[in-house]
Amino acid sequence: MKKNDWYFEDFFVGQEIDLGTRLVSEEEIIAFATQFDPQPFHIDHEAAEASIFGGVIASGWHTCSMMMRMVVDGLMSASSSMGSPGVDAVRWLLPVHAGDTLSVLYRTTKVKASASRPDRGVVWSRWAASNQRGELVCTIEGMGMFGRRPAEGLHA
Amino acid sequence: MKKNDWYFEDFFVGQEIDLGTRLVSEEEIIAFATQFDPQPFHIDHEAAEASIFGGVIASGWHTCSMMMRMVVDGLMSASSSMGSPGVDAVRWLLPVHAGDTLSVLYRTTKVKASASRPDRGVVWSRWAASNQRGELVCTIEGMGMFGRRPAEGLHA
Repeated sequence: MKKNDWYFEDFFVGQEIDLGTRLVSEEEIIAFATQFDPQPFHIDHEAAEASIFGGVIASGWHTCSMMMRMVVDGLMSASSSMGSPGVDAVRWLLPVHAGDTLSVLYRTTKVKASASRPDRGVVWSRWAASNQRGELVCTIEGMGMFGRRPAEGLHA
Repeated sequence: MKKNDWYFEDFFVGQEIDLGTRLVSEEEIIAFATQFDPQPFHIDHEAAEASIFGGVIASGWHTCSMMMRMVVDGLMSASSSMGSPGVDAVRWLLPVHAGDTLSVLYRTTKVKASASRPDRGVVWSRWAASNQRGELVCTIEGMGMFGRRPAEGLHA
């Protein structure tokens, strides 16, 4: 995919985009959490083994950030993305353990052309991450603005 | 503060906790976004200068993660925190530029003791990050579970 393969017009309700998989290593869990979420079960192998989690688990923000990377690689980098005003209903449903492999699915839930700005529209989506056992571990309700496809021949 | 200075009972509606300030460097914006959100205005100094943002801006997920670090340092690391089921209404209101200094305020909005689990309660909160001009740049509606204070003399 290249920039602007995807415009607002390419999104439709019910559309599902498979964003592939990502292995989560203990090393990167600890590196992220050391910077942003230094709780013992995120950064300390021994403490995490002794905790109710039985081992190091990813910061919820790390899980979201990994999902974002998959959305960027699988969709946004090839799109007319104009940024996002935010996300809703971030849910950390199950721990993400070191060694887990996340699979992420992007589902379009609503599309709306902007009434005030004819060059763009808003796309609502649900991002769902599952682990290698098919268990849902994190969901996010996303929002993004995308540019509309230029009219054919406009600049011809 | 030390672990368990803060229990569920120490939270009350309307409470405001000043989590201090954090300078955001271009280096860390680029480092985060290179890993998790490699869009040109987050990772490329030249491209960002030429963009509508006029310079590198932080990934929204980086802003959230920096806020999390301030919540951990200023509150959670000294608390009986038992984790979080998620957050709501993440809003990226204004760009966070390289060189900005974020100030973060934690406000308790609701508290509810668990009916089914007498050892814990849920605390709802609003995290608000402002820049050095006092402009609100990001808000998050947080949720957290906290352990209740053990009864006096229980283990005496």
